[in-house]
Amino acid sequence: MSVSAFDDPATLARYADLVVGFAANVQDGQLVEIASETGKEALTRALAASAYQHGASYVDATYFDPYVKRARLLHAGEQTLDELPALLGERVLALGEARAARIALAGPVAPDLLDGVDPRRTGRDRLPRLPEDRQLIDACTTNWTVVPCPTREWAQLVHPELDADAAWARLCDQIVHVLRLDAPDPTAAWRERQAQLAAVSTRLTARRFDAVHFSGPGTDLRVGLLPRSPWLTVAFETVDGIAHLPNLPSEEVYATPDPARVEGVVRATKPLMLDGTAVEGLELEFRDGRAVRVDAERGAELVRAQVARDEGAARLGEVALVDGDGRVGALETVFLEILLDENAASHVALGAAYSVAVAAADAGRENSSAIHLDVVIGGPAVDVDGVEPGGARVPLLRAGAWAL
Amino acid sequence: MSVSAFDDPATLARYADLVVGFAANVQDGQLVEIASETGKEALTRALAASAYQHGASYVDATYFDPYVKRARLLHAGEQTLDELPALLGERVLALGEARAARIALAGPVAPDLLDGVDPRRTGRDRLPRLPEDRQLIDACTTNWTVVPCPTREWAQLVHPELDADAAWARLCDQIVHVLRLDAPDPTAAWRERQAQLAAVSTRLTARRFDAVHFSGPGTDLRVGLLPRSPWLTVAFETVDGIAHLPNLPSEEVYATPDPARVEGVVRATKPLMLDGTAVEGLELEFRDGRAVRVDAERGAELVRAQVARDEGAARLGEVALVDGDGRVGALETVFLEILLDENAASHVALGAAYSVAVAAADAGRENSSAIHLDVVIGGPAVDVDGVEPGGARVPLLRAGAWAL
Repeated sequence: MSVSAFDDPATLARYADLVVGFAANVQDGQLVEIASETGKEALTRALAASAYQHGASYVDATYFDPYVKRARLLHAGEQTLDELPALLGERVLALGEARAARIALAGPVAPDLLDGVDPRRTGRDRLPRLPEDRQLIDACTTNWTVVPCPTREWAQLVHPELDADAAWARLCDQIVHVLRLDAPDPTAAWRERQAQLAAVSTRLTARRFDAVHFSGPGTDLRVGLLPRSPWLTVAFETVDGIAHLPNLPSEEVYATPDPARVEGVVRATKPLMLDGTAVEGLELEFRDGRAVRVDAERGAELVRAQVARDEGAARLGEVALVDGDGRVGALETVFLEILLDENAASHVALGAAYSVAVAAADAGRENSSAIHLDVVIGGPAVDVDGVEPGGARVPLLRAGAWAL
Repeated sequence: MSVSAFDDPATLARYADLVVGFAANVQDGQLVEIASETGKEALTRALAASAYQHGASYVDATYFDPYVKRARLLHAGEQTLDELPALLGERVLALGEARAARIALAGPVAPDLLDGVDPRRTGRDRLPRLPEDRQLIDACTTNWTVVPCPTREWAQLVHPELDADAAWARLCDQIVHVLRLDAPDPTAAWRERQAQLAAVSTRLTARRFDAVHFSGPGTDLRVGLLPRSPWLTVAFETVDGIAHLPNLPSEEVYATPDPARVEGVVRATKPLMLDGTAVEGLELEFRDGRAVRVDAERGAELVRAQVARDEGAARLGEVALVDGDGRVGALETVFLEILLDENAASHVALGAAYSVAVAAADAGRENSSAIHLDVVIGGPAVDVDGVEPGGARVPLLRAGAWAL
């Protein structure tokens, strides 16, 4: 087995300190949850050590096993698939009551998860996501972050042209780079990048655009915005005033769409992973805010199953702009993991809005849903304009650079 | 890597069906918890598949990570070590409310767990055990079982004279044998063995012994019994009438000591594993029911830390007899895992009694404690007698054979 950056305990410790000390911002005396998966033990243990060194009162590391989920999808009784035991959701809410810090590790560990599974059953199991997760996020009681954990399975998915060891080394190097772990002071590098994005979001909010317009190959989409709500970076604060970065990396500024005012057609510029399947060539058509057509070269039925989940699942809850100065897009790699791919280029999300990005004056107008499905629609070939209330279009992104 | 019995999916499936269908006795529609550890994924997944095939409504597989525990022991603040977040215990009690089935996998995965850890800290962390576990057991609301899961780390511990592959193959073969998976019908084989032991326990109960007496090299111990309580096999029934076998293998009959009437000295006949350390040559001296002296050739301080936990920790909560017809003792192997070693020979336990083995007329007289620490004290060289109320001694075990 080759030695990659992530086989090196020093890299793991450096990364863990960035996640614990900066992104999750674990406080002295806090309970810390690490939502891990089987296959991610090394980083989980480094995070646990760092959390205790940062004063955690207890680290509750949980490992989700996708192959136990596979056993459910293959063998569980039809009538049980839509129900989950109460104790799963109760635990999520208890984390909020305890004012815990939460760290989740993203990155595929089981690309063969759905091989041979009846596709009609797959959409009914969204685990490890739980309905209560959204409630917890909206309550702002926990300081949380989602960060990537490279795995050998993921490496082969991203770099199929390389042998297993080379793919693993390459993915690890790329993830070190997008995390800015190769900067002299990774935390300082992230503070600087976040300050740049905060300045952009302030300028965008001040312009009070009525909509944003995306145009490019296969895309002509107008996304109406809530009139009083801001553009934000992905930097949250808990009700207790603990600042945290919910995604690492995070290269975006985002706003909340008006779920009734989305019109036109849009083509995804990156494949979208759903339950281990890469949905390719996704195309969505919106009328009066609703996705009325879902097509794809591959995996359309998986997206259609999501869109059919509830009324809000066919409407947008987020629109985000990503410029070319971010570190993910420059790699020109499809990571098949939304945490990275959505930070490569602009995107929209079907489903739930983030309540923190809704002004009091707009409250209740944002979209709600059990799903939140990000679709990457931007890139150097896609122009983005702001649309003023009078209809005038103002260039925002051209060839990946801010034009505002 | 060599192929052993436990690398064979057919063996895993056969074992899983025995555990799910017989030992835990999972019922249609039940929630099933699998309390696993990192390193035990293959058996965990086989159990999940079998549970769903037996009608489980949901399988909640949890993986305890001993190296996260190690991070706690190395780095957590001194003042945090005695406290656990409420949500851990709440989840245990919720399993009772849900009338769940529970399967736990025993067997060491991390023999180096305590390397370099301050021994004064180790006794303060009993995880994955929780205080609520005992409450759940005593409530009889869940049908549960603890079964062995071989690991390569365990194999090297048990068979250090063999190379890693040979040790792994040998341990797997031994575990297949002690589980009676090599019988034509493992479930039928277990029913037959349990019926034999039930007949023995009925005869023992009928004799109303006042005490049992152990005598052998370094051992001269008299264990007083609660006067009205029975001898039992390890076969439990839930409040809903679901029969289950809490241990697989289970070769013992047991009774509840009078915690005030234990006298003499006893020498352990097997090493005892405590937090990854093998305690060897353990010797205990009892006066008026209390262990007043704890010595050992190695690891005495670990046992002393346990015995000092609370008032009941220095008194006995269980006395169990094991004859030589069981499959574990005949292997003459020290497994360094109490689930197997306690089924090789007679044993006593420091700490909590099992309330199911206490007659209503004796209620309140049994020992209680936060700990339950089994110590193997029997073997072919140890004679066991029943002591009648008048003082007469009746041979129970001679050279490992029932004499009653």
